[in-house]
Amino acid sequence: MERIKKITAQITDLDARAMEEAQKKLDSLTKPLGSLGRLEELAKQVCGITAKSNPSLEHKVIFTLAADHGVTDEGVSAYPKDVTGQMVDNFLKGGAGINVLARHCGARVVVVDMGVAVDLGPDPRLVIKKIAYGTKNMAKGPAMTRDEAIRAIVVGFEIFEDEFQRGLDIIGTGEMGIGNTSSASAITAAFTRKPVEEITGRGAGLDDKGLKNKIEVIKRSLAVNKPDPKDAIDVLSKVGGFEIAGLAGIILAAAAQKVPVVIDGFISGAAALIAYQIEPRVKKYLIAAHQSAEGGHKYILEHIGLRPLLDLDLRLGEGTGGALAMSLADAAIKILTQMATFESAKVSEKKK
Amino acid sequence: MERIKKITAQITDLDARAMEEAQKKLDSLTKPLGSLGRLEELAKQVCGITAKSNPSLEHKVIFTLAADHGVTDEGVSAYPKDVTGQMVDNFLKGGAGINVLARHCGARVVVVDMGVAVDLGPDPRLVIKKIAYGTKNMAKGPAMTRDEAIRAIVVGFEIFEDEFQRGLDIIGTGEMGIGNTSSASAITAAFTRKPVEEITGRGAGLDDKGLKNKIEVIKRSLAVNKPDPKDAIDVLSKVGGFEIAGLAGIILAAAAQKVPVVIDGFISGAAALIAYQIEPRVKKYLIAAHQSAEGGHKYILEHIGLRPLLDLDLRLGEGTGGALAMSLADAAIKILTQMATFESAKVSEKKK
Repeated sequence: MERIKKITAQITDLDARAMEEAQKKLDSLTKPLGSLGRLEELAKQVCGITAKSNPSLEHKVIFTLAADHGVTDEGVSAYPKDVTGQMVDNFLKGGAGINVLARHCGARVVVVDMGVAVDLGPDPRLVIKKIAYGTKNMAKGPAMTRDEAIRAIVVGFEIFEDEFQRGLDIIGTGEMGIGNTSSASAITAAFTRKPVEEITGRGAGLDDKGLKNKIEVIKRSLAVNKPDPKDAIDVLSKVGGFEIAGLAGIILAAAAQKVPVVIDGFISGAAALIAYQIEPRVKKYLIAAHQSAEGGHKYILEHIGLRPLLDLDLRLGEGTGGALAMSLADAAIKILTQMATFESAKVSEKKK
Repeated sequence: MERIKKITAQITDLDARAMEEAQKKLDSLTKPLGSLGRLEELAKQVCGITAKSNPSLEHKVIFTLAADHGVTDEGVSAYPKDVTGQMVDNFLKGGAGINVLARHCGARVVVVDMGVAVDLGPDPRLVIKKIAYGTKNMAKGPAMTRDEAIRAIVVGFEIFEDEFQRGLDIIGTGEMGIGNTSSASAITAAFTRKPVEEITGRGAGLDDKGLKNKIEVIKRSLAVNKPDPKDAIDVLSKVGGFEIAGLAGIILAAAAQKVPVVIDGFISGAAALIAYQIEPRVKKYLIAAHQSAEGGHKYILEHIGLRPLLDLDLRLGEGTGGALAMSLADAAIKILTQMATFESAKVSEKKK
């Protein structure tokens, strides 16, 4: 816990001066005041986060963390568990949705094995940080020990720091883990106290019977474990996942280093919720990419107080929505830094 | 009218076979069925438009058409009329919002003088198609003659065809014209029959008094001219603008050549509305970029039946929202054409 406390202590308020300067600059550009709406807000937020009035978001990184979930024993997913490892291979070969969208947006993808049930690699492009061969079945007891949860968060710090050394301006969160919408649903229910029925969705494609079973399994997991919403590590260890824990660590470490974090969908949202419960100041460092078609996501966004940028009915995860939103953040910063001013372009200002 | 009829006769239904093939391909990709939501719909639409199951959207063009509006004599804009020509200079020098976002999205901007009140250029980058030195004041009579309206649409065909020869895969519409939200509001009111008060917004930044005056001016323009909603050319000539007419022509010509059209905000929406009233089949060729903060835009989208991709409170015009949405369409096509299939990536499929 010492390392977690050390990181969270470094998370400050946004830089008011950089935001003021950004606002002044935005108001001098050749466009009606405020006419680029949320792009202007986004530019200002990025200035506040980075404490720079003239930042660049050139170097973009998406962290796609993979892990398996013991709760798949309960038949909560439409896909077999093997798919987690198979998809990691797909990420490394560049054929998955996140690879395509990351290339489109000029981001690099960092693929991490946080706890896949099989041994993967060796592959120089794969970061291996396996905490265990998947979590235990949360329907029967804690998914992981408290110590494992803390270690997985700290591993998140290390993953971020390694990439931060290589140079990055903005990050996106992504994940892969068959069964992880069950874990994300349980985390969301634990913190928001919303009914499990409303939070739980079809994940990768459950039918009605499967959905009913999934809801029962999540309810049982909460009943068996009694996660304490006042203790984020308790919730994480009892009903979380290694990829969710790692992402929570990455989010906290990024905020500590003044790096904007684009949160993808439901699972990434659950990781953000853990990070937010550990340190609420992290909120202002977060950019919500989109609202997932998975029902529980909107409750996470409401709980933290985030407004999503995109509403495209996405529910793939991997960081896909984050990649698209990262490109919007980049566009917003280019507006701030590349547009002409009324003065430089000799354009007449508004009538008095 | 003969040339308009000839173009509209070429607008066909979308290609059902290309759409079927696209759907089959989308369903074979390494992701849960339908999990990329509206990106998948977009990919399918583009396949239907282009009649290709494997299209590319590499070459992107934004047409930014500029013209002045006689109705500015009535004090309907927060900015002086000179700004139209000054902003055209800004477009040519690359300092405007649309330049920044077009560079970000890899699009080229074609800037056209459709009817600016001053002489511009000569500049090899400026396309000069001036119909007149601005429209007449619609509050006192028709903004243009019927012949001018038809000529401006036909000029739109020519502008599109010239760029089509140079190579393009997708286009976006954009405009600049001090006073043109008044024209767009009048067009919207004429076709949708919604109250002028609900349609009319603050444009580039009117105060309460200015907004009240603008509403009165639009009501007067409609009362004086009595545009006939069953005759799109009548509406266009009486309360339209040269840039709106040109864009309507570009939209129709693009649909005739099976090119997807990304519609930007309120003014572009008014041009799409004219095109749609001339030939309703154009609808399926349209991609609505965003919902403008300018109130009337949502009525246009409802009237045509389009769902916007972005909701970023934009109200700049120029094609800015279109540039961002064009990038989403490109991303959607890359998903279709670059992702691995379950078979190629050796990923297990859904459980039966």
